[in-house]
Amino acid sequence: MLKLFHHPFSSASRFVRLMLAEHEAKVEMVVERPWERRPDFLALNPAATVPVMVENDGPPIVGPATIMEYVDETRGYALSDRRLMPNHPEARAEMRRLVDWFGHKMQDEVTQYFAMEKLLKLEIPASLGGGAPDNQVLRVARLNVKHHLRYIGWLAGTRNWLAGDRLTFADLAAAAELSVIDYLGEVPWDEDAHAKAWYARVKSRPSFRGLLQDKMPGLPANRIYADLDF
Amino acid sequence: MLKLFHHPFSSASRFVRLMLAEHEAKVEMVVERPWERRPDFLALNPAATVPVMVENDGPPIVGPATIMEYVDETRGYALSDRRLMPNHPEARAEMRRLVDWFGHKMQDEVTQYFAMEKLLKLEIPASLGGGAPDNQVLRVARLNVKHHLRYIGWLAGTRNWLAGDRLTFADLAAAAELSVIDYLGEVPWDEDAHAKAWYARVKSRPSFRGLLQDKMPGLPANRIYADLDF
Repeated sequence: MLKLFHHPFSSASRFVRLMLAEHEAKVEMVVERPWERRPDFLALNPAATVPVMVENDGPPIVGPATIMEYVDETRGYALSDRRLMPNHPEARAEMRRLVDWFGHKMQDEVTQYFAMEKLLKLEIPASLGGGAPDNQVLRVARLNVKHHLRYIGWLAGTRNWLAGDRLTFADLAAAAELSVIDYLGEVPWDEDAHAKAWYARVKSRPSFRGLLQDKMPGLPANRIYADLDF
Repeated sequence: MLKLFHHPFSSASRFVRLMLAEHEAKVEMVVERPWERRPDFLALNPAATVPVMVENDGPPIVGPATIMEYVDETRGYALSDRRLMPNHPEARAEMRRLVDWFGHKMQDEVTQYFAMEKLLKLEIPASLGGGAPDNQVLRVARLNVKHHLRYIGWLAGTRNWLAGDRLTFADLAAAAELSVIDYLGEVPWDEDAHAKAWYARVKSRPSFRGLLQDKMPGLPANRIYADLDF
Protein backbone atom coordinates (compact mmCIF):
# COMPACT_ATOMS: atom_id res chain seq x y z
CA MET A 1 0.00 0.00 0.00
CA LEU A 2 1.17 3.51 -0.88
CA LYS A 3 0.78 6.50 1.40
CA LEU A 4 1.17 10.02 0.05
CA PHE A 5 1.85 13.04 2.23
CA HIS A 6 0.67 15.96 0.12
CA HIS A 7 -1.06 19.31 0.05
CA PRO A 8 -4.05 19.82 -2.28
CA PHE A 9 -2.62 23.07 -3.68
CA SER A 10 1.01 22.02 -3.95
CA SER A 11 1.61 21.58 -7.68
CA ALA A 12 4.37 19.03 -6.99
CA SER A 13 1.88 16.98 -4.99
CA ARG A 14 -0.66 17.26 -7.79
CA PHE A 15 1.92 15.99 -10.28
CA VAL A 16 2.33 12.88 -8.11
CA ARG A 17 -1.42 12.40 -7.70
CA LEU A 18 -1.77 12.50 -11.49
CA MET A 19 0.98 9.94 -12.07
CA LEU A 20 -0.42 7.60 -9.43
CA ALA A 21 -3.89 7.86 -10.98
CA GLU A 22 -2.45 7.13 -14.44
CA HIS A 23 -0.94 3.95 -12.98
CA GLU A 24 -4.24 3.20 -11.18
CA ALA A 25 -2.25 2.83 -7.97
CA LYS A 26 -4.16 2.66 -4.72
CA VAL A 27 -2.93 5.29 -2.32
CA GLU A 28 -3.82 6.55 1.12
CA MET A 29 -3.74 10.34 1.10
CA VAL A 30 -2.54 12.38 4.08
CA VAL A 31 -2.82 16.17 3.92
CA GLU A 32 0.35 17.74 5.25
CA ARG A 33 0.81 21.43 6.05
CA PRO A 34 4.59 21.76 5.69
CA TRP A 35 4.72 25.10 7.52
CA GLU A 36 3.62 23.31 10.72
CA ARG A 37 6.92 21.38 10.68
CA ARG A 38 5.33 18.34 12.32
CA PRO A 39 8.15 16.31 13.94
CA ASP A 40 6.95 13.00 12.48
CA PHE A 41 6.94 14.57 9.04
CA LEU A 42 10.41 16.11 9.48
CA ALA A 43 11.67 12.64 10.35
CA LEU A 44 10.42 11.49 6.92
CA ASN A 45 11.78 14.53 5.10
CA PRO A 46 14.13 16.96 6.84
CA ALA A 47 13.55 19.43 4.00
CA ALA A 48 9.92 19.65 5.21
CA THR A 49 8.50 19.70 1.69
CA VAL A 50 5.64 17.78 0.10
CA PRO A 51 5.13 15.38 -1.59
CA VAL A 52 6.59 12.43 0.29
CA MET A 53 5.50 8.87 -0.49
CA VAL A 54 5.94 5.70 1.53
CA GLU A 55 5.33 2.17 0.26
CA ASN A 56 4.42 -0.32 3.00
CA ASP A 57 7.20 -0.15 5.58
CA GLY A 58 9.75 1.17 3.10
CA PRO A 59 11.82 4.33 3.42
CA PRO A 60 10.38 7.72 2.39
CA ILE A 61 10.45 8.56 -1.32
CA VAL A 62 10.94 12.32 -1.31
CA GLY A 63 10.08 14.89 -3.95
CA PRO A 64 8.22 14.78 -7.26
CA ALA A 65 11.08 13.77 -9.58
CA THR A 66 12.30 11.05 -7.23
CA ILE A 67 8.75 9.71 -6.87
CA MET A 68 8.38 9.80 -10.67
CA GLU A 69 11.44 7.59 -11.16
CA TYR A 70 10.28 5.23 -8.40
CA VAL A 71 6.78 4.91 -9.80
CA ASP A 72 8.14 4.20 -13.26
CA GLU A 73 10.70 1.70 -11.96
CA THR A 74 8.15 -0.20 -9.88
CA ARG A 75 4.97 0.19 -11.97
CA GLY A 76 5.83 1.56 -15.42
CA TYR A 77 6.00 -1.86 -17.08
CA ALA A 78 2.29 -2.39 -16.34
CA LEU A 79 1.36 0.47 -18.67
CA SER A 80 3.27 -1.22 -21.51
CA ASP A 81 3.07 1.03 -24.61
CA ARG A 82 1.33 3.77 -22.60
CA ARG A 83 4.32 3.99 -20.28
CA LEU A 84 4.86 7.59 -19.14
CA MET A 85 8.64 7.28 -19.48
CA PRO A 86 9.95 7.26 -23.07
CA ASN A 87 12.03 4.29 -24.14
CA HIS A 88 15.18 5.92 -25.45
CA PRO A 89 17.73 7.67 -23.16
CA GLU A 90 17.68 10.79 -25.36
CA ALA A 91 13.90 11.02 -25.25
CA ARG A 92 13.98 10.42 -21.51
CA ALA A 93 16.47 13.28 -21.16
CA GLU A 94 14.13 15.65 -22.99
CA MET A 95 11.24 14.54 -20.79
CA ARG A 96 13.28 14.98 -17.61
CA ARG A 97 14.38 18.43 -18.78
CA LEU A 98 10.74 19.44 -19.09
CA VAL A 99 9.73 17.93 -15.74
CA ASP A 100 12.53 19.97 -14.20
CA TRP A 101 11.50 23.08 -16.16
CA PHE A 102 7.90 22.93 -14.94
CA GLY A 103 8.69 21.72 -11.44
CA HIS A 104 11.42 24.25 -10.79
CA LYS A 105 11.46 27.11 -13.28
CA MET A 106 7.73 27.52 -13.80
CA GLN A 107 7.09 26.70 -10.13
CA ASP A 108 9.58 29.36 -8.99
CA GLU A 109 8.56 32.03 -11.50
CA VAL A 110 4.79 31.56 -11.54
CA THR A 111 2.96 28.86 -9.57
CA GLN A 112 4.67 29.41 -6.24
CA TYR A 113 3.79 33.12 -6.34
CA PHE A 114 0.11 32.55 -7.12
CA ALA A 115 -0.24 29.64 -4.71
CA MET A 116 1.44 31.42 -1.82
CA GLU A 117 -0.19 34.82 -2.26
CA LYS A 118 -3.72 33.76 -3.13
CA LEU A 119 -4.16 30.31 -1.54
CA LEU A 120 -1.66 29.32 1.12
CA LYS A 121 -1.66 32.69 2.88
CA LEU A 122 -5.33 32.02 3.68
CA GLU A 123 -4.31 28.87 5.52
CA ILE A 124 -0.95 29.83 7.02
CA PRO A 125 -1.23 31.58 10.41
CA ALA A 126 -0.21 35.25 10.40
CA SER A 127 2.67 34.42 12.76
CA LEU A 128 4.16 32.18 10.06
CA GLY A 129 3.69 34.59 7.16
CA GLY A 130 0.01 34.21 6.29
CA GLY A 131 -2.24 37.19 5.54
CA ALA A 132 -3.10 39.44 2.63
CA PRO A 133 -1.61 38.81 -0.81
CA ASP A 134 1.29 40.97 -1.99
CA ASN A 135 0.10 42.62 -5.19
CA GLN A 136 3.62 43.30 -6.41
CA VAL A 137 4.36 39.58 -6.36
CA LEU A 138 1.11 38.85 -8.19
CA ARG A 139 2.02 41.37 -10.90
CA VAL A 140 5.27 39.51 -11.53
CA ALA A 141 3.45 36.16 -11.63
CA ARG A 142 0.91 37.52 -14.13
CA LEU A 143 3.72 38.66 -16.40
CA ASN A 144 5.64 35.38 -16.12
CA VAL A 145 2.65 33.10 -16.67
CA LYS A 146 2.34 34.45 -20.22
CA HIS A 147 5.87 33.36 -21.10
CA HIS A 148 5.33 29.90 -19.68
CA LEU A 149 1.99 29.49 -21.41
CA ARG A 150 3.60 30.50 -24.70
CA TYR A 151 6.37 27.93 -24.21
CA ILE A 152 3.83 25.20 -23.47
CA GLY A 153 1.90 26.29 -26.56
CA TRP A 154 5.05 26.12 -28.65
CA LEU A 155 5.79 22.58 -27.44
CA ALA A 156 2.16 21.50 -27.91
CA GLY A 157 2.08 23.05 -31.38
CA THR A 158 5.22 21.29 -32.62
CA ARG A 159 4.74 17.88 -30.97
CA ASN A 160 1.80 15.60 -30.28
CA TRP A 161 2.40 15.78 -26.53
CA LEU A 162 4.85 18.09 -24.73
CA ALA A 163 7.86 15.75 -24.78
CA GLY A 164 7.10 13.91 -28.04
CA ASP A 165 4.71 11.46 -29.61
CA ARG A 166 3.02 10.10 -26.55
CA LEU A 167 1.79 11.30 -23.17
CA THR A 168 4.64 11.35 -20.64
CA PHE A 169 5.35 12.55 -17.12
CA ALA A 170 6.18 15.95 -18.68
CA ASP A 171 2.54 16.53 -19.61
CA LEU A 172 1.43 15.70 -16.08
CA ALA A 173 4.09 17.98 -14.58
CA ALA A 174 3.01 20.93 -16.74
CA ALA A 175 -0.69 20.29 -16.18
CA ALA A 176 -0.15 20.10 -12.42
CA GLU A 177 1.37 23.59 -12.42
CA LEU A 178 -1.37 25.01 -14.63
CA SER A 179 -4.14 23.37 -12.59
CA VAL A 180 -3.21 25.36 -9.47
CA ILE A 181 -3.08 28.60 -11.45
CA ASP A 182 -6.33 27.73 -13.21
CA TYR A 183 -8.13 27.20 -9.88
CA LEU A 184 -7.43 30.89 -9.31
CA GLY A 185 -8.53 31.93 -12.80
CA GLU A 186 -5.04 33.23 -13.54
CA VAL A 187 -4.24 31.33 -16.75
CA PRO A 188 -4.71 33.66 -19.76
CA TRP A 189 -6.07 30.84 -21.94
CA ASP A 190 -7.08 33.13 -24.77
CA GLU A 191 -3.46 33.98 -25.41
CA ASP A 192 -2.48 30.54 -26.68
CA ALA A 193 -4.79 28.21 -28.56
CA HIS A 194 -2.25 25.35 -28.73
CA ALA A 195 -1.69 25.40 -24.98
CA LYS A 196 -5.43 25.52 -24.34
CA ALA A 197 -6.19 22.60 -26.65
CA TRP A 198 -3.40 20.53 -25.11
CA TYR A 199 -4.62 21.30 -21.55
CA ALA A 200 -8.19 20.34 -22.51
CA ARG A 201 -6.88 16.93 -23.60
CA VAL A 202 -4.97 16.36 -20.34
CA LYS A 203 -7.79 17.71 -18.19
CA SER A 204 -10.26 15.27 -19.77
CA ARG A 205 -8.26 12.24 -18.62
CA PRO A 206 -9.80 10.19 -15.79
CA SER A 207 -6.57 10.74 -13.80
CA PHE A 208 -7.49 14.45 -13.54
CA ARG A 209 -10.83 13.99 -11.77
CA GLY A 210 -9.44 14.08 -8.25
CA LEU A 211 -7.77 17.43 -8.83
CA LEU A 212 -10.94 18.98 -10.20
CA GLN A 213 -12.75 18.19 -6.96
CA ASP A 214 -10.25 19.99 -4.71
CA LYS A 215 -11.66 22.94 -2.83
CA MET A 216 -10.00 25.62 -0.77
CA PRO A 217 -12.26 26.63 2.15
CA GLY A 218 -13.24 30.28 1.66
CA LEU A 219 -12.00 30.48 -1.92
CA PRO A 220 -14.14 28.68 -4.51
CA ALA A 221 -12.54 27.62 -7.78
CA ASN A 222 -12.64 29.79 -10.85
CA ARG A 223 -15.86 29.17 -12.86
CA ILE A 224 -14.16 27.13 -15.60
CA TYR A 225 -11.83 25.16 -13.30
CA ALA A 226 -13.75 21.88 -13.46
CA ASP A 227 -15.25 22.56 -16.90
CA LEU A 228 -13.84 20.13 -19.47
CA ASP A 229 -15.08 22.33 -22.28
CA PHE A 230 -13.66 25.66 -21.09
CA MET B 1 32.05 12.14 -28.49
CA LEU B 2 30.60 14.12 -25.59
CA LYS B 3 30.65 17.88 -25.38
CA LEU B 4 29.98 19.64 -22.08
CA PHE B 5 28.97 23.28 -21.80
CA HIS B 6 29.95 24.23 -18.27
CA HIS B 7 31.38 26.89 -15.99
CA PRO B 8 34.38 26.02 -13.79
CA PHE B 9 32.73 27.44 -10.67
CA SER B 10 29.21 26.15 -11.26
CA SER B 11 28.77 23.34 -8.73
CA ALA B 12 26.23 21.61 -10.98
CA SER B 13 28.84 21.59 -13.76
CA ARG B 14 31.43 20.20 -11.35
CA PHE B 15 29.05 17.41 -10.38
CA VAL B 16 28.85 16.42 -14.06
CA ARG B 17 32.62 16.66 -14.55
CA LEU B 18 33.09 14.30 -11.59
CA MET B 19 30.60 11.75 -12.88
CA LEU B 20 32.11 11.81 -16.38
CA ALA B 21 35.60 11.32 -14.91
CA GLU B 22 34.34 8.39 -12.80
CA HIS B 23 33.07 6.80 -16.02
CA GLU B 24 36.35 7.70 -17.76
CA ALA B 25 34.31 9.31 -20.51
CA LYS B 26 36.11 11.46 -23.04
CA VAL B 27 34.57 14.88 -23.20
CA GLU B 28 35.22 18.15 -24.97
CA MET B 29 34.80 21.00 -22.50
CA VAL B 30 33.33 24.36 -23.49
CA VAL B 31 33.29 27.17 -20.92
CA GLU B 32 29.95 28.95 -21.02
CA ARG B 33 29.13 32.21 -19.26
CA PRO B 34 25.35 31.88 -18.90
CA TRP B 35 24.84 35.59 -18.16
CA GLU B 36 26.02 36.39 -21.70
CA ARG B 37 22.91 34.62 -23.04
CA ARG B 38 24.71 33.52 -26.19
CA PRO B 39 22.03 32.79 -28.83
CA ASP B 40 23.57 29.43 -29.82
CA PHE B 41 23.54 28.40 -26.17
CA LEU B 42 19.95 29.55 -25.64
CA ALA B 43 18.98 27.36 -28.58
CA LEU B 44 20.43 24.39 -26.67
CA ASN B 45 18.85 25.38 -23.36
CA PRO B 46 16.24 28.14 -23.20
CA ALA B 47 16.69 28.23 -19.39
CA ALA B 48 20.25 29.51 -20.07
CA THR B 49 21.78 27.37 -17.32
CA VAL B 50 24.85 25.14 -17.24
CA PRO B 51 25.62 22.27 -17.49
CA VAL B 52 24.37 21.13 -20.88
CA MET B 53 25.81 18.04 -22.54
CA VAL B 54 25.58 16.91 -26.16
CA GLU B 55 26.56 13.47 -27.46
CA ASN B 56 27.59 13.45 -31.11
CA ASP B 57 24.71 14.99 -33.07
CA GLY B 58 22.15 14.16 -30.40
CA PRO B 59 19.79 16.57 -28.67
CA PRO B 60 20.95 18.61 -25.65
CA ILE B 61 20.93 16.81 -22.28
CA VAL B 62 20.11 19.63 -19.87
CA GLY B 63 20.82 19.94 -16.17
CA PRO B 64 22.78 17.88 -13.67
CA ALA B 65 20.11 15.35 -12.63
CA THR B 66 19.07 14.71 -16.24
CA ILE B 67 22.71 14.25 -17.25
CA MET B 68 23.19 11.89 -14.30
CA GLU B 69 20.35 9.62 -15.46
CA TYR B 70 21.63 9.74 -19.04
CA VAL B 71 25.20 8.90 -18.07
CA ASP B 72 24.02 5.99 -15.94
CA GLU B 73 21.65 4.72 -18.63
CA THR B 74 24.28 4.85 -21.37
CA ARG B 75 27.48 4.08 -19.42
CA GLY B 76 26.62 2.82 -15.94
CA TYR B 77 26.81 -0.89 -16.90
CA ALA B 78 30.53 -0.47 -17.67
CA LEU B 79 31.27 0.26 -14.01
CA SER B 80 29.62 -3.03 -13.01
CA ASP B 81 29.72 -3.31 -9.19
CA ARG B 82 31.14 0.20 -8.88
CA ARG B 83 28.07 1.62 -10.62
CA LEU B 84 27.18 5.04 -9.16
CA MET B 85 23.44 4.25 -9.23
CA PRO B 86 22.27 1.81 -6.56
CA ASN B 87 20.49 -1.34 -7.74
CA HIS B 88 17.25 -1.22 -5.78
CA PRO B 89 14.49 1.35 -6.47
CA GLU B 90 14.33 2.29 -2.77
CA ALA B 91 18.07 2.88 -2.59
CA ARG B 92 17.91 4.84 -5.82
CA ALA B 93 15.17 7.01 -4.31
CA GLU B 94 17.35 7.83 -1.30
CA MET B 95 20.25 8.67 -3.60
CA ARG B 96 18.08 10.87 -5.81
CA ARG B 97 16.70 12.64 -2.73
CA LEU B 98 20.25 13.52 -1.71
CA VAL B 99 21.28 14.64 -5.21
CA ASP B 100 18.26 16.93 -5.15
CA TRP B 101 19.07 18.11 -1.61
CA PHE B 102 22.63 19.10 -2.53
CA GLY B 103 21.83 20.39 -6.01
CA HIS B 104 18.86 22.48 -4.94
CA LYS B 105 18.64 23.03 -1.19
CA MET B 106 22.35 23.34 -0.42
CA GLN B 107 22.93 25.14 -3.72
CA ASP B 108 20.18 27.69 -2.96
CA GLU B 109 21.04 28.18 0.71
CA VAL B 110 24.84 28.13 0.56
CA THR B 111 26.84 27.51 -2.62
CA GLN B 112 24.98 29.94 -4.83
CA TYR B 113 25.52 32.76 -2.34
CA PHE B 114 29.26 32.16 -1.99
CA ALA B 115 29.80 31.54 -5.70
CA MET B 116 27.87 34.60 -6.81
CA GLU B 117 29.20 37.06 -4.24
CA LYS B 118 32.84 35.99 -4.14
CA LEU B 119 33.53 34.45 -7.57
CA LEU B 120 31.04 35.20 -10.31
CA LYS B 121 30.67 38.90 -9.47
CA LEU B 122 34.37 39.23 -10.39
CA GLU B 123 33.58 37.95 -13.87
CA ILE B 124 30.09 39.34 -14.51
CA PRO B 125 30.11 42.89 -15.96
CA ALA B 126 28.77 45.57 -13.60
CA SER B 127 25.91 46.23 -16.03
CA LEU B 128 24.71 42.64 -15.47
CA GLY B 129 25.04 42.64 -11.69
CA GLY B 130 28.77 42.11 -11.14
CA GLY B 131 30.78 44.06 -8.59
CA ALA B 132 31.53 43.98 -4.87
CA PRO B 133 30.20 41.14 -2.70
CA ASP B 134 27.16 41.73 -0.51
CA ASN B 135 28.30 41.02 3.05
CA GLN B 136 24.77 40.44 4.30
CA VAL B 137 24.38 37.59 1.82
CA LEU B 138 27.74 36.15 2.86
CA ARG B 139 26.70 36.22 6.52
CA VAL B 140 23.64 34.11 5.69
CA ALA B 141 25.77 31.69 3.66
CA ARG B 142 28.25 31.31 6.53
CA LEU B 143 25.42 30.45 8.90
CA ASN B 144 23.80 27.99 6.50
CA VAL B 145 26.99 26.17 5.55
CA LYS B 146 27.30 24.90 9.14
CA HIS B 147 23.90 23.19 8.98
CA HIS B 148 24.71 21.56 5.68
CA LEU B 149 28.14 20.42 6.84
CA ARG B 150 26.55 18.89 9.94
CA TYR B 151 24.00 17.03 7.83
CA ILE B 152 26.76 15.67 5.58
CA GLY B 153 28.68 14.67 8.71
CA TRP B 154 25.62 12.89 10.08
CA LEU B 155 25.18 10.95 6.83
CA ALA B 156 28.90 10.14 6.63
CA GLY B 157 28.94 9.05 10.26
CA THR B 158 26.02 6.65 9.96
CA ARG B 159 26.76 5.19 6.53
CA ASN B 160 29.85 4.18 4.62
CA TRP B 161 29.13 6.71 1.86
CA LEU B 162 26.42 9.38 1.89
CA ALA B 163 23.63 7.31 0.32
CA GLY B 164 24.66 3.90 1.65
CA ASP B 165 27.31 1.22 1.32
CA ARG B 166 29.01 2.33 -1.84
CA LEU B 167 30.03 5.52 -3.59
CA THR B 168 27.10 6.95 -5.57
CA PHE B 169 26.18 10.07 -7.49
CA ALA B 170 25.09 11.56 -4.14
CA ASP B 171 28.69 11.72 -2.94
CA LEU B 172 29.74 13.48 -6.13
CA ALA B 173 26.85 15.94 -5.87
CA ALA B 174 27.73 16.87 -2.29
CA ALA B 175 31.46 17.08 -3.01
CA ALA B 176 30.81 19.32 -6.01
CA GLU B 177 28.98 21.83 -3.80
CA LEU B 178 31.66 21.72 -1.11
CA SER B 179 34.49 22.04 -3.63
CA VAL B 180 33.30 25.48 -4.76
CA ILE B 181 32.94 26.65 -1.15
CA ASP B 182 36.30 25.14 -0.25
CA TYR B 183 38.03 27.05 -3.08
CA LEU B 184 36.99 30.15 -1.15
CA GLY B 185 38.10 28.77 2.21
CA GLU B 186 34.53 28.97 3.50
CA VAL B 187 34.02 25.38 4.70
CA PRO B 188 34.37 25.24 8.51
CA TRP B 189 36.05 21.81 8.40
CA ASP B 190 36.95 21.81 12.07
CA GLU B 191 33.29 21.71 12.97
CA ASP B 192 32.65 18.20 11.68
CA ALA B 193 35.24 15.42 11.68
CA HIS B 194 32.96 12.92 9.88
CA ALA B 195 32.28 15.33 7.04
CA LYS B 196 35.97 16.18 6.75
CA ALA B 197 37.07 12.53 6.66
CA TRP B 198 34.43 11.71 4.05
CA TYR B 199 35.45 14.70 1.88
CA ALA B 200 39.12 13.68 2.12
CA ARG B 201 38.17 10.28 0.68
CA VAL B 202 36.21 11.78 -2.23
CA LYS B 203 38.83 14.46 -2.90
CA SER B 204 41.55 11.80 -3.20
CA ARG B 205 39.81 10.08 -6.10
CA PRO B 206 41.42 10.49 -9.53
CA SER B 207 38.09 11.91 -10.79
CA PHE B 208 38.66 14.96 -8.57
CA ARG B 209 41.96 16.06 -10.10
CA GLY B 210 40.47 18.29 -12.77
CA LEU B 211 38.52 20.31 -10.23
CA LEU B 212 41.59 20.88 -8.06
CA GLN B 213 43.36 22.54 -10.99
CA ASP B 214 40.63 25.13 -11.62
CA LYS B 215 41.70 28.71 -11.11
CA MET B 216 39.74 31.93 -10.98
CA PRO B 217 41.79 34.79 -12.48
CA GLY B 218 42.49 37.29 -9.72
CA LEU B 219 41.33 35.04 -6.90
CA PRO B 220 43.71 32.19 -6.01
CA ALA B 221 42.32 29.12 -4.26
CA ASN B 222 42.32 28.79 -0.52
CA ARG B 223 45.64 27.30 0.71
CA ILE B 224 44.22 23.84 1.41
CA TYR B 225 42.00 23.62 -1.70
CA ALA B 226 44.22 21.21 -3.62
CA ASP B 227 45.76 19.65 -0.52
CA LEU B 228 44.67 16.00 -0.16
CA ASP B 229 45.79 15.97 3.46
CA PHE B 230 44.05 19.13 4.67
